[in-house]
Amino acid sequence: MRSLEGSPIARDGKLLVLAYDHGLEHGPTDFDPVPETMDPETVFDLATHDAVTGFAVQKGVAEAYYPSYEDSVNLVAKLNGTSNLWMGEYDSAVNWSVEYANELGADAIGFTLYGGSNHEVEMAEEFAQAQEAAREHDLPAIMWSYPRGQGVKNDTKDEVIAYAARQALELGADVAKVKYPGSPEAMEWVTESAGPVKVIMSGGSKTSDREFLESVQNVLDAGGDGLAVGRNVWQRENAEAMLDALEALIFEETGVDAALDRM
Amino acid sequence: MRSLEGSPIARDGKLLVLAYDHGLEHGPTDFDPVPETMDPETVFDLATHDAVTGFAVQKGVAEAYYPSYEDSVNLVAKLNGTSNLWMGEYDSAVNWSVEYANELGADAIGFTLYGGSNHEVEMAEEFAQAQEAAREHDLPAIMWSYPRGQGVKNDTKDEVIAYAARQALELGADVAKVKYPGSPEAMEWVTESAGPVKVIMSGGSKTSDREFLESVQNVLDAGGDGLAVGRNVWQRENAEAMLDALEALIFEETGVDAALDRM
Amino acid sequence: MRSLEGSPIARDGKLLVLAYDHGLEHGPTDFDPVPETMDPETVFDLATHDAVTGFAVQKGVAEAYYPSYEDSVNLVAKLNGTSNLWMGEYDSAVNWSVEYANELGADAIGFTLYGGSNHEVEMAEEFAQAQEAAREHDLPAIMWSYPRGQGVKNDTKDEVIAYAARQALELGADVAKVKYPGSPEAMEWVTESAGPVKVIMSGGSKTSDREFLESVQNVLDAGGDGLAVGRNVWQRENAEAMLDALEALIFEETGVDAALDRM
Amino acid sequence: MRSLEGSPIARDGKLLVLAYDHGLEHGPTDFDPVPETMDPETVFDLATHDAVTGFAVQKGVAEAYYPSYEDSVNLVAKLNGTSNLWMGEYDSAVNWSVEYANELGADAIGFTLYGGSNHEVEMAEEFAQAQEAAREHDLPAIMWSYPRGQGVKNDTKDEVIAYAARQALELGADVAKVKYPGSPEAMEWVTESAGPVKVIMSGGSKTSDREFLESVQNVLDAGGDGLAVGRNVWQRENAEAMLDALEALIFEETGVDAALDRM
Amino acid sequence: MRSLEGSPIARDGKLLVLAYDHGLEHGPTDFDPVPETMDPETVFDLATHDAVTGFAVQKGVAEAYYPSYEDSVNLVAKLNGTSNLWMGEYDSAVNWSVEYANELGADAIGFTLYGGSNHEVEMAEEFAQAQEAAREHDLPAIMWSYPRGQGVKNDTKDEVIAYAARQALELGADVAKVKYPGSPEAMEWVTESAGPVKVIMSGGSKTSDREFLESVQNVLDAGGDGLAVGRNVWQRENAEAMLDALEALIFEETGVDAALDRM
Repeated sequence: MRSLEGSPIARDGKLLVLAYDHGLEHGPTDFDPVPETMDPETVFDLATHDAVTGFAVQKGVAEAYYPSYEDSVNLVAKLNGTSNLWMGEYDSAVNWSVEYANELGADAIGFTLYGGSNHEVEMAEEFAQAQEAAREHDLPAIMWSYPRGQGVKNDTKDEVIAYAARQALELGADVAKVKYPGSPEAMEWVTESAGPVKVIMSGGSKTSDREFLESVQNVLDAGGDGLAVGRNVWQRENAEAMLDALEALIFEETGVDAALDRM
Repeated sequence: MRSLEGSPIARDGKLLVLAYDHGLEHGPTDFDPVPETMDPETVFDLATHDAVTGFAVQKGVAEAYYPSYEDSVNLVAKLNGTSNLWMGEYDSAVNWSVEYANELGADAIGFTLYGGSNHEVEMAEEFAQAQEAAREHDLPAIMWSYPRGQGVKNDTKDEVIAYAARQALELGADVAKVKYPGSPEAMEWVTESAGPVKVIMSGGSKTSDREFLESVQNVLDAGGDGLAVGRNVWQRENAEAMLDALEALIFEETGVDAALDRM
Repeated sequence: MRSLEGSPIARDGKLLVLAYDHGLEHGPTDFDPVPETMDPETVFDLATHDAVTGFAVQKGVAEAYYPSYEDSVNLVAKLNGTSNLWMGEYDSAVNWSVEYANELGADAIGFTLYGGSNHEVEMAEEFAQAQEAAREHDLPAIMWSYPRGQGVKNDTKDEVIAYAARQALELGADVAKVKYPGSPEAMEWVTESAGPVKVIMSGGSKTSDREFLESVQNVLDAGGDGLAVGRNVWQRENAEAMLDALEALIFEETGVDAALDRM
Repeated sequence: MRSLEGSPIARDGKLLVLAYDHGLEHGPTDFDPVPETMDPETVFDLATHDAVTGFAVQKGVAEAYYPSYEDSVNLVAKLNGTSNLWMGEYDSAVNWSVEYANELGADAIGFTLYGGSNHEVEMAEEFAQAQEAAREHDLPAIMWSYPRGQGVKNDTKDEVIAYAARQALELGADVAKVKYPGSPEAMEWVTESAGPVKVIMSGGSKTSDREFLESVQNVLDAGGDGLAVGRNVWQRENAEAMLDALEALIFEETGVDAALDRM
Repeated sequence: MRSLEGSPIARDGKLLVLAYDHGLEHGPTDFDPVPETMDPETVFDLATHDAVTGFAVQKGVAEAYYPSYEDSVNLVAKLNGTSNLWMGEYDSAVNWSVEYANELGADAIGFTLYGGSNHEVEMAEEFAQAQEAAREHDLPAIMWSYPRGQGVKNDTKDEVIAYAARQALELGADVAKVKYPGSPEAMEWVTESAGPVKVIMSGGSKTSDREFLESVQNVLDAGGDGLAVGRNVWQRENAEAMLDALEALIFEETGVDAALDRM
């Protein structure tokens, strides 16, 4: 465990991670709804918003753009990832060494673990090495903890998501990024499973502003520590306004109504 | 062989290892019977009991809590482990390097070997490396020696368990954690198979206090050197009292009746 | 991202890479149409043409001939490659270390990635290591980004090619070599997908001089940065003249008619 | 080739290796006929007999007992081995590094190769590394050369055993431990196949004293250099006496009758 | 490319490599026709013949005998090889490191590549490492370039053999050992495919003296650079005389009739 105190990727113990590795994970079609998001600058600009405590990208995007944003954006180096052209059992290539991420100025590392995949053992061992290297550079580790694959029949079941959060604790992550388990009660169980590890909700489907903010509020009420969000922000026309609202909700604890007023 | 003399994980040659890696191996549902055990502090507190000579956890739990307990708990760094979301042939990821475990103050390493699994050869080679690294840091090695997988039809058969104990000796463990083979005679054969390696019984099903203590007494009578226990302690309401009783039984050799009186 | 400014493999941000690894990838039958191209000197001589900003060969060919051409040719060290005797799922052996390529005077590295192959994860990890080693030697990385294999039903579909270009960006290449997606509109989407990564069109089928030059002009009009070409140049009787024309088209921006006049 | 001259594991060019890795390879049931052999001390004591030029054990047994016997026993560090719980194609885990074996005072290394197994290539590469490391420490290498697995229909055929002996020569072993091929003529061919590599017969089935000694005499007559024996010695009631007889037969060349008189 | 000028394994640009790794590749039955060839000394003695520019053996044979022949024989360290007990897809174990071969005084390395095998990618990567290590020690690399396995229906087809020769060039070998493709015209194509890489014919079936010498003359006439020969020399009664004839044919360019007169 590395206390996040003093780390820029959390503020008062809360996180809002903006993720932008969709170009690798899903391909450019993810940018069709808002074509200008194809250009990393558009999203890097969003990431300079005060609400965003960390911005997660792959190595190539960081190399190309982070030098221009290093004063205004906290970099989460997403170390592994794979295209969805891949048809094999869930797996993720390690595309980036911790050493090089540190050289580029990363503030934290991000790493996906597919618990239950036939590659789980291999991925856990890759995570172990990355985590220990991150410790040497005093970089917090965020685990994208997503049970998937042959061993996982239902990845939205509460006990699967609580397990995912617990894996983050047991294996030495500092933050767990997990799916929302469907109810506040289940989410409470998830956050308790993770112990002192920060739990942040992953995305959520794109809904109305109010519905989205309410789901975030549910996470916070259930002991969650924030949000990791991608398309739900940068696929909106009003992305900046949504970040204003999320800032109010997560860091100022205004509640949903007041947050909506910021938009 | 590393003599356990001088090592804190044994007292007068006997061990009581409290294990708490269930969050990784089984998931948070293991904590349902006594919900507060979800919180590692609850079990770390139990581990400060004098009866406990070693406390076995995964890396992330050690990182988060051991700094607060290093004066009162002896750390067994459980180096490998895998979630039960895994549906492949029995295997266990190496989640922790010996070097980092040593830095965190580990007093011993723990390592699972699934003899008979199609991953046995790979796991034995991983153990070999961990064991030699542990020797460099003068850390005893405890093998969770559990035959399982394609090659093992019945993992409670006495000759399978005696084999497991012997593997611990042959491969260079200092302590073998094995299942109880069902009878005192069989257990005697198991402990003899291990030669000078300490043999500790793994868990046992949760029964009445007397039955549990009698099974432990059987182990001791058969030449066993103690107990590794998890749920059978921390899933009890009277966990502290049970540790009192186990201390009497294992270290003071009081017999079952006197041990029960301590509760 | 490594700016290509100052690198000899681009001129004013445009590239013309002549590729000659066909002896490995396809075998000597590729030289049948113009038998003298079997002799690497013939093609090395072509590569001294001013139009050619980089010449891509495998290690053995570089070792044997590059010492005689190091003043007149910019070497792209094609690090991986495999014969087409190989019947397995698409894969490519790493035949050359970056360190040795650098010693031999390489100006850039080239690396194939088969997105969607069952070896994609392994190849991406090999690329990651090569790319980071190339960074240490300040060598740009050109990715031959060719989705192929079990996961790819149609490798000429625009969204597959745009994905390939995006992978180059996300994984840290400086130049993406991709197939032409069939229309200028699609090509525009491809070049946008790659962000600041240079996109060069791979080959194209051998057609009339005008048709070929028009296809190159389409690439340039769509925001492409040049061409990687092999047989379409050295299988022509008038290879030198075609390079004159390509020089006019790509670097002098003369348009197709004026370029044809050069021939 | 390392001349065995000057090495304690041969005497006048002859070897008698006592093997005691059965606890790993076969499990404790191998000790049932003479239960006290379960205790490594019993067999270590036998190994102090003058007749025994080398004693082969796995790492854990060496660690635990060799410090007490290092003046009276020559240690053969059996580097690889696997339990027979393993149901996969024949393979053997590398349980011990040469460096650590050397630290513990090993006089030679032992290594199993299953020629014809689908793991042959992997095992040969592991042997190659161990052999070169052994050369650095001037330790002779004994190959347990046992063709087995998918490629081997009959492992007692003379041409299979001659092949096994030749593999030991070609791959750089100093001593080959092979099965007896059934006749003196065949054995002669086997020893010739091995060239200067010492050939020692492996075990043989437990028969009457005379029959066993006659089989050893056959090996010697056929140019063999001694015996590697396990159960055929330590499963006998008269193990010491049998070692007396073997000493006479192998090192004093007394013939069978005189050797029997020693018993 | 390493010029062979100055290397003892070629004379005036021509090579005659005597190969003697049959004990590993085929087993001792290969020595049945001339039983004394089982003894490596017999063949080492042949290798001292002036005609022989290099003698290819596996590590163990080199260790045992080369110290006695290092002044009279040029050693080709055959780094990989596998027994034919192996029933898996064509593969070859790396039995020898370049560093150790160099220590033993090797003058060149030899390495088998099975193009088209499902292990081709792995073998090419092993070759790449060996080749670069050989460069550091200034040792030429001879590739046994033998397409075989799932991807190769007919390994005597001219285009397969030309491909094999080209692979040697592309991957950085200095000499390619290939099968004779059946006709002088085809052989010419093969040698041209290899560019500056020396091409030597592998073996050929054992025929009459004249037929054998004529096949060698065909190779030379077609631009080949010599011969790698094993059984076709040492399985002959008149091996020395045949080497006399080969010396005349290859190095003195006498033609077949005059060469036959030497016998």
